[in-house]
Amino acid sequence: MKYDHIREAAYKANMQLPELGLVLFTFGNVSAVDRSLGVFAIKPSGVPYNELSPGKMVIVDLDGNKVEGDLRPSSDTLTHAVLYKHWKNIGGIVHTHSTFATAWAQSQRDIPIFGTTHADHNTVDIPCAPPMGDAMIKGNYEYETGFQIMNCFKERNLNYEEVEMILVGNHAPFTWGKTPAKAVYNSAVLENIAHMAYLTEQINASVPRLKKALIKKHFERKHGPDSYYGQH
Amino acid sequence: MKYDHIREAAYKANMQLPELGLVLFTFGNVSAVDRSLGVFAIKPSGVPYNELSPGKMVIVDLDGNKVEGDLRPSSDTLTHAVLYKHWKNIGGIVHTHSTFATAWAQSQRDIPIFGTTHADHNTVDIPCAPPMGDAMIKGNYEYETGFQIMNCFKERNLNYEEVEMILVGNHAPFTWGKTPAKAVYNSAVLENIAHMAYLTEQINASVPRLKKALIKKHFERKHGPDSYYGQH
Amino acid sequence: MKYDHIREAAYKANMQLPELGLVLFTFGNVSAVDRSLGVFAIKPSGVPYNELSPGKMVIVDLDGNKVEGDLRPSSDTLTHAVLYKHWKNIGGIVHTHSTFATAWAQSQRDIPIFGTTHADHNTVDIPCAPPMGDAMIKGNYEYETGFQIMNCFKERNLNYEEVEMILVGNHAPFTWGKTPAKAVYNSAVLENIAHMAYLTEQINASVPRLKKALIKKHFERKHGPDSYYGQH
Amino acid sequence: MKYDHIREAAYKANMQLPELGLVLFTFGNVSAVDRSLGVFAIKPSGVPYNELSPGKMVIVDLDGNKVEGDLRPSSDTLTHAVLYKHWKNIGGIVHTHSTFATAWAQSQRDIPIFGTTHADHNTVDIPCAPPMGDAMIKGNYEYETGFQIMNCFKERNLNYEEVEMILVGNHAPFTWGKTPAKAVYNSAVLENIAHMAYLTEQINASVPRLKKALIKKHFERKHGPDSYYGQH
Repeated sequence: MKYDHIREAAYKANMQLPELGLVLFTFGNVSAVDRSLGVFAIKPSGVPYNELSPGKMVIVDLDGNKVEGDLRPSSDTLTHAVLYKHWKNIGGIVHTHSTFATAWAQSQRDIPIFGTTHADHNTVDIPCAPPMGDAMIKGNYEYETGFQIMNCFKERNLNYEEVEMILVGNHAPFTWGKTPAKAVYNSAVLENIAHMAYLTEQINASVPRLKKALIKKHFERKHGPDSYYGQH
Repeated sequence: MKYDHIREAAYKANMQLPELGLVLFTFGNVSAVDRSLGVFAIKPSGVPYNELSPGKMVIVDLDGNKVEGDLRPSSDTLTHAVLYKHWKNIGGIVHTHSTFATAWAQSQRDIPIFGTTHADHNTVDIPCAPPMGDAMIKGNYEYETGFQIMNCFKERNLNYEEVEMILVGNHAPFTWGKTPAKAVYNSAVLENIAHMAYLTEQINASVPRLKKALIKKHFERKHGPDSYYGQH
Repeated sequence: MKYDHIREAAYKANMQLPELGLVLFTFGNVSAVDRSLGVFAIKPSGVPYNELSPGKMVIVDLDGNKVEGDLRPSSDTLTHAVLYKHWKNIGGIVHTHSTFATAWAQSQRDIPIFGTTHADHNTVDIPCAPPMGDAMIKGNYEYETGFQIMNCFKERNLNYEEVEMILVGNHAPFTWGKTPAKAVYNSAVLENIAHMAYLTEQINASVPRLKKALIKKHFERKHGPDSYYGQH
Repeated sequence: MKYDHIREAAYKANMQLPELGLVLFTFGNVSAVDRSLGVFAIKPSGVPYNELSPGKMVIVDLDGNKVEGDLRPSSDTLTHAVLYKHWKNIGGIVHTHSTFATAWAQSQRDIPIFGTTHADHNTVDIPCAPPMGDAMIKGNYEYETGFQIMNCFKERNLNYEEVEMILVGNHAPFTWGKTPAKAVYNSAVLENIAHMAYLTEQINASVPRLKKALIKKHFERKHGPDSYYGQH
């Protein structure tokens, strides 16, 4: 009973993935954390979306140990756990293999910032973390994936509260946010940005990246102290 | 009560955007003007389409001042206001970030006229206004976006009653028309033209633009004095 | 009353176009002929598909004169009339601006035969008729479009009963068949072939065309005297 | 009555194809085998999916002879029969002309392993069997298609229980699995992999194939003796 709120939040957020066209079969998962209880609810592994229910969400602590639930949690659970443990202000995490974002990840390229749709959400290129080293892969793989993501942010001096998405090279995207719903929103935005950046380079192979004044303007009108987008 | 007709028109036109696949989340807006009252109704900022209702449309005058409504109007409101103020025969305006049109905008290229689908609606390439200068961006950005659009038309000697669409470089498309419904129609047509022009260049990189006789013929059969398309 | 059967057939076939994703708004039309009565039923011009009914179909003779109906027939009516008049065994004709087929038409290229999906329906590249000469365009345009199509078939020694589809250069596809339903089927097949041929060249720019033995085999198993596809 | 279980399984699996967007019209078929009875149930030839029912599935033995059923079986029946006869542990087979997989087949290229979505299902590139020789084509074509598939696996030392999918050059994909449902799953996965590999090369023409450690890790976490994906 005390986990019902995160089970419900994780369930609702997971159900958004097929609706937004971000997953095929079971290729994706969302989790929702409760910081005061020190646990998160996550999709069970390999269960089709149309068979999910709030009660099937698995409760796991921030070291990745199962706390409650009949099913085995997502095989990506340790990646979620590592990110929750180190990035204190995240409320939800999403992993998908959405088509265009995954294609960029497979291409091992950052997604260049080409327009205001991108700048509305990020002031930098979407980072693509390099593929992991063999030792990390052969070790505790999902755990190390979390560190691969955090290392990429450290090396580039990125702030996880400003940039809420990453591509893991050769693999696929992860996104996060203050809430699970925001993390899902970020996954859909990333897929849209990835699609448009791909087309942009096809249409004009020598197109320059977005100019600084536009990056600043668009990001600030949505996220700056004087933002005037939305109803807040 | 006296604004109900434009609230209703703006609401209906806004609801067409997700149905036509032109928007993700809240990335788009439509407005409807009443010239005699000197005001227009526009989508509130950041409100999801499935939560809209006619009563939530915001009433704004042609200088962009809110006249009536509980919510904050779209962050693009000043662009709409400028265009209504200077282009006297527009009845509705649409802004979207539709995928293919936005990719062309990000590519900073006009969409070349390659076929009769394009010529049915325009006799020229779809113009792409250059990205705005830094002073304009740092100033009253949305207001200046309106002037960037009008300046592009002036420089190219285009008539806004003949060409009802533009790409704003690095940003996204704007369309307009005698009615909000026509402006939405133009957004869908633009997305379709943008998609086919992209494919056309991929299939034949050295394809020539459409010959003049065909441009003239197709535009006139739909729009000329002796047009014979439709039931008018 | 005596035209009800072709009105019904044309109506049903027209309604298939949006269902198969082949049209945006009103950009397409289907007709159904009755050879004994010397007339065909065709979609009215510019009427949205969701407002159509069998009674709104317009009856026209093979010279393109309206015989019965309250509405103006499709602006492409004369092209249909010419084809019916000269190609005696056609029962239905379709014109669309479907995305991939139109992109090939705009590219002014035949669609090369790359695989068995193509060979199941045609033994040759899908022909792209060259853009019309200026005199033809300025003359009776839609009438001449019919001749442009037939001339292309004559020059290439193609048989309209074997090859039931063509691209008109710079414009868009026309398909036909023994029945309106078969003509619609051909439009959907053409769009599918156009999509896959585009992708094929992107994946392997130097891919050879299909070998003759495979072309022969696949066409004959569907259409030869010893065909063994389907339930006939 | 004694074939009802495979009729039902084949019917259900066939109905998944349009739902998953893998077929246009009748361009695909699924079969379900009963090893103890020595027969399989397969889709009738050329019957639209919305007219199918379990009772319309055709029962055929492993030499391709019809055992029971009013309709003619799929024209690809002999390919299914050959594969069932020689690959003893297959429970279901699927053939489609799905868009991206077919484009790779037409391109006559293996699909390179670029990411973990691919590695989750296969440790090797998806093989593309070369187009068949003229003698095989002119002979018992569908029967020889089965051997073309098996020969490709022999030459490359592939195991049909590990790699459950192939492209037949110039033609289209075949997939299989322990059950018809798994074979359909594989067709959808293949289409997804084909789509992403195509995009990956467009985004980065010189992208390397996936590193060995990642291939091993991802395949084993789903399929190895210590797999930890799913609820088994």
